[in-house]
Amino acid sequence: LDINLKEIAQRLNLELVGDGSVEISGIANLIDASATELTFLFSVGYKKHLETTSAAAVILRREDADGCAIPAIISPQPRLSWGHVAALFDREPVPDGNIHPSAVIHQAAKLSENVTIGANAVIESGAEIGPDSAIGPGCVVGQQVIVGKNCRINANVTLYHHIQLGDRVIVHAGAVIGADGFGFEFDGATGTLVKISQIYSVIIGNDVEIGAGTTIDRGALNDTLIGDGVKLDNQVQIGHGTQVGANTAISGCTAIAGSTKIGSYCLIGGAVGIIDNIEIADQVEITAKSLVSQSITEKGRYSSGTGLMQSKDWKRNIVVFKKLDKLLRRVRGLEAKIR
Amino acid sequence: LDINLKEIAQRLNLELVGDGSVEISGIANLIDASATELTFLFSVGYKKHLETTSAAAVILRREDADGCAIPAIISPQPRLSWGHVAALFDREPVPDGNIHPSAVIHQAAKLSENVTIGANAVIESGAEIGPDSAIGPGCVVGQQVIVGKNCRINANVTLYHHIQLGDRVIVHAGAVIGADGFGFEFDGATGTLVKISQIYSVIIGNDVEIGAGTTIDRGALNDTLIGDGVKLDNQVQIGHGTQVGANTAISGCTAIAGSTKIGSYCLIGGAVGIIDNIEIADQVEITAKSLVSQSITEKGRYSSGTGLMQSKDWKRNIVVFKKLDKLLRRVRGLEAKIR
Amino acid sequence: LDINLKEIAQRLNLELVGDGSVEISGIANLIDASATELTFLFSVGYKKHLETTSAAAVILRREDADGCAIPAIISPQPRLSWGHVAALFDREPVPDGNIHPSAVIHQAAKLSENVTIGANAVIESGAEIGPDSAIGPGCVVGQQVIVGKNCRINANVTLYHHIQLGDRVIVHAGAVIGADGFGFEFDGATGTLVKISQIYSVIIGNDVEIGAGTTIDRGALNDTLIGDGVKLDNQVQIGHGTQVGANTAISGCTAIAGSTKIGSYCLIGGAVGIIDNIEIADQVEITAKSLVSQSITEKGRYSSGTGLMQSKDWKRNIVVFKKLDKLLRRVRGLEAKIR
Repeated sequence: LDINLKEIAQRLNLELVGDGSVEISGIANLIDASATELTFLFSVGYKKHLETTSAAAVILRREDADGCAIPAIISPQPRLSWGHVAALFDREPVPDGNIHPSAVIHQAAKLSENVTIGANAVIESGAEIGPDSAIGPGCVVGQQVIVGKNCRINANVTLYHHIQLGDRVIVHAGAVIGADGFGFEFDGATGTLVKISQIYSVIIGNDVEIGAGTTIDRGALNDTLIGDGVKLDNQVQIGHGTQVGANTAISGCTAIAGSTKIGSYCLIGGAVGIIDNIEIADQVEITAKSLVSQSITEKGRYSSGTGLMQSKDWKRNIVVFKKLDKLLRRVRGLEAKIR
Repeated sequence: LDINLKEIAQRLNLELVGDGSVEISGIANLIDASATELTFLFSVGYKKHLETTSAAAVILRREDADGCAIPAIISPQPRLSWGHVAALFDREPVPDGNIHPSAVIHQAAKLSENVTIGANAVIESGAEIGPDSAIGPGCVVGQQVIVGKNCRINANVTLYHHIQLGDRVIVHAGAVIGADGFGFEFDGATGTLVKISQIYSVIIGNDVEIGAGTTIDRGALNDTLIGDGVKLDNQVQIGHGTQVGANTAISGCTAIAGSTKIGSYCLIGGAVGIIDNIEIADQVEITAKSLVSQSITEKGRYSSGTGLMQSKDWKRNIVVFKKLDKLLRRVRGLEAKIR
Repeated sequence: LDINLKEIAQRLNLELVGDGSVEISGIANLIDASATELTFLFSVGYKKHLETTSAAAVILRREDADGCAIPAIISPQPRLSWGHVAALFDREPVPDGNIHPSAVIHQAAKLSENVTIGANAVIESGAEIGPDSAIGPGCVVGQQVIVGKNCRINANVTLYHHIQLGDRVIVHAGAVIGADGFGFEFDGATGTLVKISQIYSVIIGNDVEIGAGTTIDRGALNDTLIGDGVKLDNQVQIGHGTQVGANTAISGCTAIAGSTKIGSYCLIGGAVGIIDNIEIADQVEITAKSLVSQSITEKGRYSSGTGLMQSKDWKRNIVVFKKLDKLLRRVRGLEAKIR
């Protein structure tokens, strides 16, 4: 890409301050940026690095621009501008619109125009791939799967039978969509766990991104639903029949059990656990590694867990934690005596 | 499937109440069921939905059947009946008994009768696949692996060399069985971690189900053992040399370290952590996201963690948690003074 | 392998005590070892099992050798000797140096001498595979990826475009390196999350081992860096732009968010969570399932969480935990009154 700062400002429709003729070769953070790279000031706390950065230019808020010694683009939301600029410098290979000859495509599968199918991918009977979508190498697309238009399914993804994906869905490598939910019932007569067939499906909306190694199970008594604009990080687990509301973002390694309803515009941290059969309201934020063991009916920020401490201190404290109930009663007893 | 309610009752050997001639097209939950679907009442708490359901019929317990306005099948254990009925409506493709021509099968591999091998699967030297078993597309079955009869290995599964699976084992997509356990020893002379070869294997019993993305490591000084009837959900991790007793069920994202022995008929919740070299008795239940940091010698239900709360309250409480030991001593001091 | 105890002692350059002519067929733990197997005494706590072991011989420390009734090899660090001995008995198939005819290798990929490419692997344009390295069946190696020498990439691994691996790197099945980091910014104008292209890469040093199902994301404003000698267990998640220092070991299912710097020689337990944008010093140890929510500036051992207890007791205690702040104030009140 051959672009100068002025052209970037024009593309973003933002104000340029300083020399716009500098050629921009890429983007980088404030500390590592080289003399031909554009950088960003996201928060005032990093302003000290702006004084020493080698960057060619910076995107920052007007209120942070005072005293800036390098050319700048003024943005009301530098992180959003970052999103717009980064795409210009992305080296990610573009799908070539070819069906690789090593791919195994069932004659009863339907491929729309400009579909890319990678090497050794497998497309099974009745599957439909929408226009401009790309299926990566090594993917397995099961029977009757529907993939919308302009989707990007990366390598080695598995889509089980009858799954549906909307438009502009990105799925990262190794994700598995539509495996059986975890459903068993104990049969006292045989002393074994009887499998409950998971006969429903997974329906994924438009503009969803699904991380590497993430698993979304098919439903048992209703479909698992992932709303429009949902973003799932890597190694997330979504149980059978669970619903995730539109534009909710869920960070890595979070485990969500079955039949739970999560609202829209939630921000769920990494390594969170959410139990089954509860409801979480819209705009709920859950901090990293919390356990959500009951419904949340009001928006807000929620947490669980204990703070990190040195292990030797922690051991003393958890001994007391195990007797907290008794400690409370001892305090009550004292209060009664000295009332 | 073309079946009416009376035929379903007969297959389940259960009592029918009301009109058995209604054609059943599928199953669904109480709220979503349509006029041709069968539903279930699992607990009395949902009985209000029975009054408004559009379902054609319901399976419920005798004590919940009073006043039921739709045809019903009486079951002592509706969830178990659900397991039996759901299988009737499963659209999961049945293995076709074919070896796909794109599969790469070593000449020294042994395939029994009626084995299905999916497209682009790889079966290495010395592997044995039992009768009626199916290996999904993109799977890699390593050297000397033994797969029993009537197993179902879904797409993109990796079985490392020398692994053994019993009969009727289901493995979901992306699972990895037999990777090296995590074994290193620090060598002070070089300042590096020296790898300890993981020379043992993984032995999996009969009727085991293994979830998508689950990983089970091979042993270092003894085999990793998964007992008969064990059910592992998605993204479970089983460390090297660990044993899981028969009919134990482990929910998603639970991590179990090495050389630990877990009993039979345990119910282990999601996102639980279990450390290495401990023993857990039979019939132990662990609630979601607990850490098991010592052996459990008696059956029962165990937990760890703190309850979820609003983050601002949580922050105040964890400050106190870090001083719990001191708080206890202050209470003791007060008690001494006002004795 | 046909080797006797004396030859093993010579290979390890360690002292032999007793009859060295016994043929050793393999290694096993103290309890399970058969009469032709070599075993190990790692800690004095297991010495009682030494009296009853059926093993042919044992490797132990000099201070534990007293009264040992079987032939022994004296080692200052038996676990390290185990590492050296185990490799002798490893049945792991050795790469055969062949390019499987079913592999799909782009004409613009570069394969060095003695490279092994497994069946149905895909090597894309511009990828370079160093000498003596092996790419397993079903792997996808993206465009411009560089793999060093003597690497072992197991089955069904995905390496995204432009990733770099050093020498002697082992990657286990199903791992995904270089998927997009989780980067989005909320656009109030559209009410949606805008994707931030993740344009940097992942750079992995020498002698790194990466577990099954582990995911390492590519960076957004700088490369994700995995130092020399780092060992990552299964299902670990490394966020975009994060750095892991040399010779750090991270156990299974640990989730590390983005832009965090982890020091060298750290030992991070299983199922730990580490938030974004913090720094962890060298030689820090984190116990299993802890949440690291702030930087750690000094070496030492750190923990969070509560101890495991019976669920009924736990429920009572977490009620008090939620009021800890108030409890502290009640104790202060009492102290004020009886001063």
